[in-house]
Amino acid sequence: MAGFRSSSPRMSLGLFVLGAGHHIAAWRLPGAPHGAATDFAHYQRIARIAEDAKFDMIFFADSASIRDWGLSPIDGDERSVRLEPITLLSALSVTTERIGLVATASTTYNEPFNIARRFASLDLLSGGRAGWNLVTSSNAQDGPNFAQGSHPPHAERYARAEEFWQVVKGLWHSWQGDDAFPIDKSAGILFRPEALRPLDHKGPHFSVRGPLGVPPSPQGHPVVVQAGASEAGRETAARSAEVVFAAHQSFDEAFTFYQDVKGRLARYGRAPDSLRILPGVSPVVGRTRAEAQAAFDALQELVSTESGLKLLAPFTGGLDLRAYDPDGPLPDLPPTTNAIGRQKLLVDLARRENLTIRQLWLHIAGARGHWQIVGTAGDIADQLEHHFRGGAADGFNIMPPALPRSLETITGLLLPELRRRGLFREDYDGSTLRDHLGLPRPALPAFPNVA
Amino acid sequence: MAGFRSSSPRMSLGLFVLGAGHHIAAWRLPGAPHGAATDFAHYQRIARIAEDAKFDMIFFADSASIRDWGLSPIDGDERSVRLEPITLLSALSVTTERIGLVATASTTYNEPFNIARRFASLDLLSGGRAGWNLVTSSNAQDGPNFAQGSHPPHAERYARAEEFWQVVKGLWHSWQGDDAFPIDKSAGILFRPEALRPLDHKGPHFSVRGPLGVPPSPQGHPVVVQAGASEAGRETAARSAEVVFAAHQSFDEAFTFYQDVKGRLARYGRAPDSLRILPGVSPVVGRTRAEAQAAFDALQELVSTESGLKLLAPFTGGLDLRAYDPDGPLPDLPPTTNAIGRQKLLVDLARRENLTIRQLWLHIAGARGHWQIVGTAGDIADQLEHHFRGGAADGFNIMPPALPRSLETITGLLLPELRRRGLFREDYDGSTLRDHLGLPRPALPAFPNVA
Repeated sequence: MAGFRSSSPRMSLGLFVLGAGHHIAAWRLPGAPHGAATDFAHYQRIARIAEDAKFDMIFFADSASIRDWGLSPIDGDERSVRLEPITLLSALSVTTERIGLVATASTTYNEPFNIARRFASLDLLSGGRAGWNLVTSSNAQDGPNFAQGSHPPHAERYARAEEFWQVVKGLWHSWQGDDAFPIDKSAGILFRPEALRPLDHKGPHFSVRGPLGVPPSPQGHPVVVQAGASEAGRETAARSAEVVFAAHQSFDEAFTFYQDVKGRLARYGRAPDSLRILPGVSPVVGRTRAEAQAAFDALQELVSTESGLKLLAPFTGGLDLRAYDPDGPLPDLPPTTNAIGRQKLLVDLARRENLTIRQLWLHIAGARGHWQIVGTAGDIADQLEHHFRGGAADGFNIMPPALPRSLETITGLLLPELRRRGLFREDYDGSTLRDHLGLPRPALPAFPNVA
Repeated sequence: MAGFRSSSPRMSLGLFVLGAGHHIAAWRLPGAPHGAATDFAHYQRIARIAEDAKFDMIFFADSASIRDWGLSPIDGDERSVRLEPITLLSALSVTTERIGLVATASTTYNEPFNIARRFASLDLLSGGRAGWNLVTSSNAQDGPNFAQGSHPPHAERYARAEEFWQVVKGLWHSWQGDDAFPIDKSAGILFRPEALRPLDHKGPHFSVRGPLGVPPSPQGHPVVVQAGASEAGRETAARSAEVVFAAHQSFDEAFTFYQDVKGRLARYGRAPDSLRILPGVSPVVGRTRAEAQAAFDALQELVSTESGLKLLAPFTGGLDLRAYDPDGPLPDLPPTTNAIGRQKLLVDLARRENLTIRQLWLHIAGARGHWQIVGTAGDIADQLEHHFRGGAADGFNIMPPALPRSLETITGLLLPELRRRGLFREDYDGSTLRDHLGLPRPALPAFPNVA
């Protein structure tokens, strides 16, 4: 089969961290950490395990509102409480030394100047380890928390995101020239004024003068991550992303997406390797298949009907599934104005596998539509290797169902198996996130912090 | 003399941290840290010294633009480069365990939902040590970096700030009730839905639904700090501030301000002790007066004419002082639309003491209009004690002229002298910023992070 595939012999692996785990019922497990979602000590523990295991990066998603799907009472979904992720990552930069630090920040409800400044600051204080997951807010309930009030439609959000990215990138390039920062005490010259360039951006959404007062980091500027699966999302990724987080259930879907996005790069003058595509995967690893299945079953049994309905609510286009038998088939759904790609994925799945409503929510209870694998390290490594070598992935964004428990089986069983196959690093051989991902460093002057 | 004075026997002391020090020429001193303004290791060192010395808090100011006073070339002012302060403080929360962490964030170019969320996150992950210095952006050059484009006038900025504060406070009170967070795994109840209250704010500047998904911290919510000296600023402070950073040259000015602001509290139903007024002071401490003066002279000699003109530029109302003899008198200045209070302070000073332009900029080169004292620990403690006992201060925001050098003389000479007089703590006796400042804790439920 012709096409693109990773030119690196080794996978990039991100660790997607979420409270007590990605499985909706993880916080209810006996022994699960208590109040993990906002417990900094918990996140420190996870970050240290991830760095010891040599993950490329840890990643935190974000949402600017508490989801309210009209299914009262709110039944203890851990995702209703969270720490703002840049603030959290900044603290974790001190707990760790090498691992990359990636956070979501929305282009819909922020100012590009503020976002450019915060990520540049995180990048500088972490020694060049920051990454920005550039998203548009898919949750319409974020809108009423901000001055503009209403949630803009999909196309408008993507147009704004494109311009937002141009501004942020321009601000990150405010400093130019090899000798930008002489720090000459006797002459009184800290930096060369000609090294500092205003942006003077004027566009339909933003007018931003610049320059940005945060100097470039050892990796130039933060890595840009995206996750959109729609046509607009793919095009934005091809133009500007360096990492793409994807969501696919099958090899064929993942392969098709990978080939499509890699194929779009050339028209922007980009090489295939300048973008790393990392599908999300939630592995339940056991020493035997039976052990893995038992661990997964223990989680699935804790999913309440209420949790299940809430899981499906973003994708129903407003249809209230409480009126339907959970053990009957999924009714036809009105189209959703948000989460378009994810709705299609789910409906296709339900039809293809003839799932009941309950089976459908159990299907996404572990990883919300991402790829779920249950098995031994060998089983799971086989599948990951197939995707990696077959032109469907440059690596994976690992979503442990339960934290820290599943992460321990991932680092203790799965990663050693990947290393035996030469598919994952033994140790870091660089210090920045770009080093880990094998991404080029933008030509920007580094601020000399140490004499 | 009748009036208000601190009811506490001990001063509150903040440490206002700025790059290589507050003196404009500090970075040029031989031995000054290299590139301090964006060096995280430098800030870690300072934060540890401050905590060992039992300061109530460290404080970082902010500015969203690089100042450009039309005096090209930019001549190496260290203040043109900085890290975004909440991001920086979040990292420093891991370096420290007890000291308060206060950052400026502007109400002019942010959304209240974002600011509420970031400070609440810092507060939670630091164990209740966060403080927010609520300002309006006085620098008109911030405007062109944001979507709204132009800088709003003074009264409009204060009206927005008032409403901004109402929204942030409302969001911080999203969670109510003693048993808000049962974290009941068997019942599947993480929090009680009735504990979570939408804000549904609708006002002239903002429409914010809420609630906020960040639970309260051990101190309830972050401490609110303000610094405005204008009539609108004083009134905002009396209504909503818990700490005020002030800027005064003389005891009489400080006394008048203190009495005025404390006198405004009653009309908002507030006790005098619910607000701590901390004038800024920049002490140059020596074992002898000659040693202190020599240390100060060494800094003053490094102030270039260009730096001096830049120091005065924000206060000249657009008048270009390059056209005047720096060793002649200060000409009449057109009124400035920003920094009104600070301009008046400066012009009054120049007239009262008959200063030349050069003498005026040298006067503020150490602390930009804040109180500068040069002397022995005994000399300086005498003056601080006079302000503290005389109804002019509840403590001070200490602005070391050079970092870490001046801080070492402050902790090594001045603080021991204050302790000998019973004016400053020997050790922390609480764990939150509110504990240190003696401020009441808002009645909010704490999220139980540890089982």
